[in-house]
Amino acid sequence: MPQQPSTEQWIEYLAWNQEDLIPVVTQESASGRILTLAWMNRAALAETVATGQAVYWSRSRNRLWHKGEESGHYQYIEEIRTDCDRDSLLITVRQEGGIACHTGRHSCFYLRLADRNWQTVDPVLRDPGLIYKKS
Amino acid sequence: MPQQPSTEQWIEYLAWNQEDLIPVVTQESASGRILTLAWMNRAALAETVATGQAVYWSRSRNRLWHKGEESGHYQYIEEIRTDCDRDSLLITVRQEGGIACHTGRHSCFYLRLADRNWQTVDPVLRDPGLIYKKS
Repeated sequence: MPQQPSTEQWIEYLAWNQEDLIPVVTQESASGRILTLAWMNRAALAETVATGQAVYWSRSRNRLWHKGEESGHYQYIEEIRTDCDRDSLLITVRQEGGIACHTGRHSCFYLRLADRNWQTVDPVLRDPGLIYKKS
Repeated sequence: MPQQPSTEQWIEYLAWNQEDLIPVVTQESASGRILTLAWMNRAALAETVATGQAVYWSRSRNRLWHKGEESGHYQYIEEIRTDCDRDSLLITVRQEGGIACHTGRHSCFYLRLADRNWQTVDPVLRDPGLIYKKS
């Protein structure tokens, strides 16, 4: 279902893809580490700017995803950039709790290629069972 | 045209999208800066690993794109990572010439959002007319 173009010029400036999404690289300001690559639609970007916290579009759940809504691991926006092609975003954030990944790791990028194998190279900082409490 | 699955297990481990592509975040090791967000197909990734230099899939030109082939601004691979969803890559590189963007800037992410406007905040380091010599 295509979104209606918004009336916001700074939003329409971006090159939204055929699914009306844009990829978002999230970098932690303190460490410089890349935490995640996620996606936003227009509503997610508008909400991110309005709240000062990262709000993505969850492609698996097909709904807005306020990062930290379950885990408490909110991401506070420091800067938003786009690139020369206007088809991706880079957001710089302060990561609440120092954990961005649902596995309890600092970053989602914890698998490193070595000798044609993906090796887990970053530790679990907190048991996901403790992060995502069953209700 | 879908690609044939490769016989390489570490390549098939990744969650290629419907176009048989994966987004690639490229980070400069020395500065920690994000240089680009680009895309690879299986052949680009295999070539990147084989040569130790970043090779992307150019969606606009619909062909393999050995980064630096025209500009000389090659990217030398230091590390390749994937994330918990296996649907994006993070590569850490040494950026030849300190310029990743075709506009002659260090990074492609030179447009910063401020007061609902995209503002150019990074300087052109070298005139693109000098980088891309007419043949």
